[in-house]
Amino acid sequence: MKRKDHCGTCAEKAGLPPGSLVYVGPESHPTTLHAIHYDANSFSARRLANDQELPPLDAATAVTWVDLHGLRDVEMLGRIGQRQKIHPLVMEDILHTGQRPKAELFDDRIFLVLKMVRATTGAPAGLTIEIEQVSLVLGPGHLLTFQEREGDVFEPVRQRLRAGGGQLRKFGPDYLAYALMDAVVDQYFTVVETIGEEIERLEDSLVLDPGPESMAELHRLRRTLIHLRRAVWPLRDAVALLLREEHALIAPATRPYLRDLHDHVIRVIETIETNREMVAGLLDIYLSSVSNRLNEVMKVLTIIATIFIPMTFLTGVYGMNFRHMPELEQWWGYPAVWLVNLAIAVAMLLFFRRKKWL
Amino acid sequence: MKRKDHCGTCAEKAGLPPGSLVYVGPESHPTTLHAIHYDANSFSARRLANDQELPPLDAATAVTWVDLHGLRDVEMLGRIGQRQKIHPLVMEDILHTGQRPKAELFDDRIFLVLKMVRATTGAPAGLTIEIEQVSLVLGPGHLLTFQEREGDVFEPVRQRLRAGGGQLRKFGPDYLAYALMDAVVDQYFTVVETIGEEIERLEDSLVLDPGPESMAELHRLRRTLIHLRRAVWPLRDAVALLLREEHALIAPATRPYLRDLHDHVIRVIETIETNREMVAGLLDIYLSSVSNRLNEVMKVLTIIATIFIPMTFLTGVYGMNFRHMPELEQWWGYPAVWLVNLAIAVAMLLFFRRKKWL
Amino acid sequence: MKRKDHCGTCAEKAGLPPGSLVYVGPESHPTTLHAIHYDANSFSARRLANDQELPPLDAATAVTWVDLHGLRDVEMLGRIGQRQKIHPLVMEDILHTGQRPKAELFDDRIFLVLKMVRATTGAPAGLTIEIEQVSLVLGPGHLLTFQEREGDVFEPVRQRLRAGGGQLRKFGPDYLAYALMDAVVDQYFTVVETIGEEIERLEDSLVLDPGPESMAELHRLRRTLIHLRRAVWPLRDAVALLLREEHALIAPATRPYLRDLHDHVIRVIETIETNREMVAGLLDIYLSSVSNRLNEVMKVLTIIATIFIPMTFLTGVYGMNFRHMPELEQWWGYPAVWLVNLAIAVAMLLFFRRKKWL
Amino acid sequence: MKRKDHCGTCAEKAGLPPGSLVYVGPESHPTTLHAIHYDANSFSARRLANDQELPPLDAATAVTWVDLHGLRDVEMLGRIGQRQKIHPLVMEDILHTGQRPKAELFDDRIFLVLKMVRATTGAPAGLTIEIEQVSLVLGPGHLLTFQEREGDVFEPVRQRLRAGGGQLRKFGPDYLAYALMDAVVDQYFTVVETIGEEIERLEDSLVLDPGPESMAELHRLRRTLIHLRRAVWPLRDAVALLLREEHALIAPATRPYLRDLHDHVIRVIETIETNREMVAGLLDIYLSSVSNRLNEVMKVLTIIATIFIPMTFLTGVYGMNFRHMPELEQWWGYPAVWLVNLAIAVAMLLFFRRKKWL
Amino acid sequence: MKRKDHCGTCAEKAGLPPGSLVYVGPESHPTTLHAIHYDANSFSARRLANDQELPPLDAATAVTWVDLHGLRDVEMLGRIGQRQKIHPLVMEDILHTGQRPKAELFDDRIFLVLKMVRATTGAPAGLTIEIEQVSLVLGPGHLLTFQEREGDVFEPVRQRLRAGGGQLRKFGPDYLAYALMDAVVDQYFTVVETIGEEIERLEDSLVLDPGPESMAELHRLRRTLIHLRRAVWPLRDAVALLLREEHALIAPATRPYLRDLHDHVIRVIETIETNREMVAGLLDIYLSSVSNRLNEVMKVLTIIATIFIPMTFLTGVYGMNFRHMPELEQWWGYPAVWLVNLAIAVAMLLFFRRKKWL
Repeated sequence: MKRKDHCGTCAEKAGLPPGSLVYVGPESHPTTLHAIHYDANSFSARRLANDQELPPLDAATAVTWVDLHGLRDVEMLGRIGQRQKIHPLVMEDILHTGQRPKAELFDDRIFLVLKMVRATTGAPAGLTIEIEQVSLVLGPGHLLTFQEREGDVFEPVRQRLRAGGGQLRKFGPDYLAYALMDAVVDQYFTVVETIGEEIERLEDSLVLDPGPESMAELHRLRRTLIHLRRAVWPLRDAVALLLREEHALIAPATRPYLRDLHDHVIRVIETIETNREMVAGLLDIYLSSVSNRLNEVMKVLTIIATIFIPMTFLTGVYGMNFRHMPELEQWWGYPAVWLVNLAIAVAMLLFFRRKKWL
Repeated sequence: MKRKDHCGTCAEKAGLPPGSLVYVGPESHPTTLHAIHYDANSFSARRLANDQELPPLDAATAVTWVDLHGLRDVEMLGRIGQRQKIHPLVMEDILHTGQRPKAELFDDRIFLVLKMVRATTGAPAGLTIEIEQVSLVLGPGHLLTFQEREGDVFEPVRQRLRAGGGQLRKFGPDYLAYALMDAVVDQYFTVVETIGEEIERLEDSLVLDPGPESMAELHRLRRTLIHLRRAVWPLRDAVALLLREEHALIAPATRPYLRDLHDHVIRVIETIETNREMVAGLLDIYLSSVSNRLNEVMKVLTIIATIFIPMTFLTGVYGMNFRHMPELEQWWGYPAVWLVNLAIAVAMLLFFRRKKWL
Repeated sequence: MKRKDHCGTCAEKAGLPPGSLVYVGPESHPTTLHAIHYDANSFSARRLANDQELPPLDAATAVTWVDLHGLRDVEMLGRIGQRQKIHPLVMEDILHTGQRPKAELFDDRIFLVLKMVRATTGAPAGLTIEIEQVSLVLGPGHLLTFQEREGDVFEPVRQRLRAGGGQLRKFGPDYLAYALMDAVVDQYFTVVETIGEEIERLEDSLVLDPGPESMAELHRLRRTLIHLRRAVWPLRDAVALLLREEHALIAPATRPYLRDLHDHVIRVIETIETNREMVAGLLDIYLSSVSNRLNEVMKVLTIIATIFIPMTFLTGVYGMNFRHMPELEQWWGYPAVWLVNLAIAVAMLLFFRRKKWL
Repeated sequence: MKRKDHCGTCAEKAGLPPGSLVYVGPESHPTTLHAIHYDANSFSARRLANDQELPPLDAATAVTWVDLHGLRDVEMLGRIGQRQKIHPLVMEDILHTGQRPKAELFDDRIFLVLKMVRATTGAPAGLTIEIEQVSLVLGPGHLLTFQEREGDVFEPVRQRLRAGGGQLRKFGPDYLAYALMDAVVDQYFTVVETIGEEIERLEDSLVLDPGPESMAELHRLRRTLIHLRRAVWPLRDAVALLLREEHALIAPATRPYLRDLHDHVIRVIETIETNREMVAGLLDIYLSSVSNRLNEVMKVLTIIATIFIPMTFLTGVYGMNFRHMPELEQWWGYPAVWLVNLAIAVAMLLFFRRKKWL
Repeated sequence: MKRKDHCGTCAEKAGLPPGSLVYVGPESHPTTLHAIHYDANSFSARRLANDQELPPLDAATAVTWVDLHGLRDVEMLGRIGQRQKIHPLVMEDILHTGQRPKAELFDDRIFLVLKMVRATTGAPAGLTIEIEQVSLVLGPGHLLTFQEREGDVFEPVRQRLRAGGGQLRKFGPDYLAYALMDAVVDQYFTVVETIGEEIERLEDSLVLDPGPESMAELHRLRRTLIHLRRAVWPLRDAVALLLREEHALIAPATRPYLRDLHDHVIRVIETIETNREMVAGLLDIYLSSVSNRLNEVMKVLTIIATIFIPMTFLTGVYGMNFRHMPELEQWWGYPAVWLVNLAIAVAMLLFFRRKKWL
């Protein structure tokens, strides 16, 4: 769980003026820049050496997607922001990667913040998720994306762009933005599904062996779900805002797709909530399991102790050294003690059986 | 519990372009096609070999109900979608059976997603529910329904259509859609009633014998209710949407029926919520039952142990081998020990009675 | 608790066409019919043999209250419904007594569903409540009421009608409907008060003797409150609807009374919620009471055991039969053991006192 | 806790016609009547013998405050109601002191219900609160207040009226009503502060000695908070209604004061909620405290028992009377047993230390 | 935790007329006064001896920030309030430092209340937070700030003002107010981050050693979060009000910054809620940890006791002094007892292993 992704380092920035461009994510990655340029008939992709090579963006009838990875080169980001006349607060949000998912509508721009989630189920720490902020700046004829590091879930979108044929190449940058958001949300489904499997696995192991590690895993799972919820929940409002507000940058043909996306986000949220309820249920199972174990332990102790304690008392009686103990002299004394002991044991066992402890 | 029905396999589709027609339900069934054609005076039903035999749908004054079972034949579905000009995203929702119940209004179409629920109370797994997605596409003069597999709750509707006489044959396809939704919701009542009986049964068994299996059953019941709620809850909004929005496809005469349906859905939801509270109450009973058992076990142990331990100590004293132990020589020594032991036992029993442990 | 009243038998009706008149309440009672006819100056009441004797209702300047008990005679109900042009779905709601409380406004009719509640505190089952559906159809100059069986809470209203003098005879059927609703809601106050007394009684008994029966009673109380809440909660919205919508059948002079009724319903709901919180608090008391008992039991065991176990060990030592045990030969050996034992006991008691266990 | 104040005796009235004037509070007090007459320059206060002495109220340019204590004299209240043309339902609300706090706006009147709260922290019952209903009828140029008994929190307001100088004498009866409400709300602050101190006191005593009395006190505190919340919560909506609706009787200059009052009510509610969370937290502390105690008790028992039980077994072995037990004959037998016992004890203690039980 | 900051001393003021200027914070500090005067080109800051030295505020084109620390000198505050025509209720709110954060819009003024939070993690009490009220009065060309004592989080703002260059000197007093609010909110991030670290630290220590101190710390943390939430939560509505209402004093250029601030406040609130859920999770861990410990303790006791109690019984048997006990005479008697004992021990250990207790 990388908590820092969420809100951690916001504090490091306390005291700086608003709009200061300082990267405050967990670890800085070197900045790389890719540009994809396409229309219905053509497609070109290349890696840019620096922001000087950025093509003109606003005048194009085709679509340009500038994809930036790694936020270390703050100066370059500042230059891009100035060139594209992006509001300083937006640039600040891009760099301060603890933002909530959101959509902000400007006159000629739409700013979107998403959280890309990656789940790994490794041996030592169990299921962990990593959260990476993806910022989208949608303008006329272009889309800028800012990611914290290399590696993303957009590869299928790039392949579809390259292959052409589908709708992706025919629609504008709003559809591209939708396609990227859809890819992010599809990833959420994968992650919640992994969590669901983890829950099922844990459910079995809880019944078999409710040790403290299960409790720790349960807690980790709950924490993961809390963080995941925080990453997904605000996205619903963001997409709803895009749906509700009429904006020149969003073509009417894209709206059904956004509505579909909205549905998907709600489904992810509902699955997260279901998982949270499941985890709460597992906790109840765990606690009752522990109680049952205690009960069982105590039953064993009680059965053994209550059978043998009276018998031991009896042997103690005839172990006393009084001079005048008539029973000791009788030939039937010793077998009688054994018989009495046997009777005690049988009576106790019957008592426990009646109590349903056996 | 077939969790896969809900959200599971959504992940398998991650990476595909939106609108791709791939069936992602739990298991694919072969596709069959039935068409029912009726008006107030006539009725005909037949099984179609393939989608070529589909009659013209939009121009009819009569009503045509095309009922499709099994989503394996994706190509056929694609052809039907194209012929009827159904939006690709709608076709995708029909195939991806993890949708939430919903209503989507288009200009000349209404798209509805429902969840058909089947409860089975078998011996090994207890109460399990199966959830099947039913998609309805309502257009002028026709209704298309898409089901995941053979077998549904619509048989009574078909019989009423065949019999004629009621309102069903006189009204349009909107009333038919209502009748199908009503059949689905009636089925919910059956299922929640089964669950309610299960809860009552469990309530008795919890008091008699609060074993870990009861806990497992309780958990299963809770999980079933969570899934059922997910299947029913969004339906309320869907029906409310149909009620709220004026749509040309829904005749005014159908509205009171939709209002009635809305009432029924709310009643199902309230019953589910009541059942959830009941289950939560059962958990409390279970836990307190376990605690009470532990208390009882400990009381038995404590009573036996605290009576015999002092007595055993006393016999131990007179089992010592000191040369100078004057009591050992007395004739009254042995009976005195018995008397003292008796006194200890009586005192202890009185003490426990005062404590109300006996 | 008659759960069947709520939602139970809805399932029996699954598969029937909407609007089918089948009585699905828990037990059917024979149908009886009474008519009360009054205006400011006159009053007449008589029992009708059947629905043929029904006076004309709509044309009257006076008020006619037709009161029907028992829903067995479905044909008669059908004829009344047709004569009065009541919507088939309304007739269905009257017969299917698992409805939620609600108000439905038609152009020339108002349809109301209420739940009449009766509490009995008998010896075997403790506090139980019975819920009976009362349906009101308010039309111009008349009011029809449909009850599941004989016996209701309307006797005081009938007496006031007979006595005259108050407002009841001067106002129209809307005020009569209000008066009946007010009588039903007054009954709720009686019931929640009975429950409140039950809670107080239980509170005392929980502290004195927290046995499993208390837990069972607690659970029963909670279940009763859940069902009561379901019967009352929707009534708030129903009355609010009457208040909010301007309807020709509700005279302006009746509105303040409806507002007062609304207040009363909210107060009932708040008292139910308070009682629910009380019951939740009692559960906490119960559980902590059980824990305390366990603690006390364990303390007694521990005190006795830890005092006597070391002492018993010591006597065991001098009960050994080694040839060379010098202490055994000394005259002070035996008293020394007693002294040591005494010292152990005193030390343990001091230890327990310091731990505040004594 | 006087539960009767809340909802109790409402039931006694069940069956009476609406608007019947019957006092249904917990205990009736004799009715006394005071009138205060003031404007910016003059002030007079006197006790009235009965309602005949009531000055004319509506025509005055000055303000008349008629303050009535004790609701026993129902006839006098009826006459006052008729003289002032107060709606019968309002008069009923004044007498039925189980009302929720509320504001009702009539054309020429405003009716307010408040709950005056008194906290006493006596020795036997701990903190108890008493709730008294205060009803305000605000008309042009006058204010009528109805209290259940002598003694209120309005003394400072009377003194300010007598002293003059402030705004109170310059403003109209709406400001007087505000001043009285403010006095009631200020009293809430005192009460919640007392409760807060009680919580802190309890917090300390819980840690020191978590006995069952603490649990009882906790429960009492929680119950008190539930009742207090019921008395305060609806006041927020009542004051908000006064703020929202423009009413001729409320001067614009009074609005900022009402807004301030609204703020205060919200602060009281928030403090109550905070206190409720605190009490919930205390319950957790209590339960975990009890668990810890049990743990500690069991540790002591286990340590003592597991050390001495094996040792006692060993002494038992050499207490056997077999003829052939070679060790018994050796000179080192006896010291060897002591050494072995010592070794067992040390090993056990080390084991417990490693387990961190010591 | 200084609870008094919140609501405590409000009660001391009960009975005073509204608008009375009495300082009711926890401890009064001497009043000091600073004025900062700046525009885009100039900057001057000086400490004022008293309110006579206050420059004229309303007429300036430049911005004057009057910063007042310590609320002891109530007369001076009264004079400032009168000179600036601040509503008496606003002046009262400034002095009564238990206000909720809020924004009040007047025609030519905006009144804001904030809560400045300071966290200290000292050795004896663990993490404690101090809350100080800051009141802002924003007027044309000036901003008045009222703080309870010396020391605040505004030093970076003052430095930026002094340094010039940024936007701060170019914008009006509304931007200054924003900058101060932003500094306060940035401080919240620092505090919630400290709390988050505390939670992580506690999480580790809970697993290692779940003693009662952990529980106390947990409780303290929860209480801190409750108080922090109360200080932050209402700020959201306050900032939203500033955003929603168009007010002449807030320039359009400042709005994006307020929107950003709103985002930040929501992020703080979400982090607080996440932390609260974390703490609730820790409580579950703690309780299950305690249960596990108890289980472990009982297992050790049970294993030792059930192995040795039967063996001790056996030795007791052969310690009896019956004359006729044939086994005692056999040479194999003694070793046979050892063998039987060994068999008992092994059988028990196997039993425990099968039960997974070992």
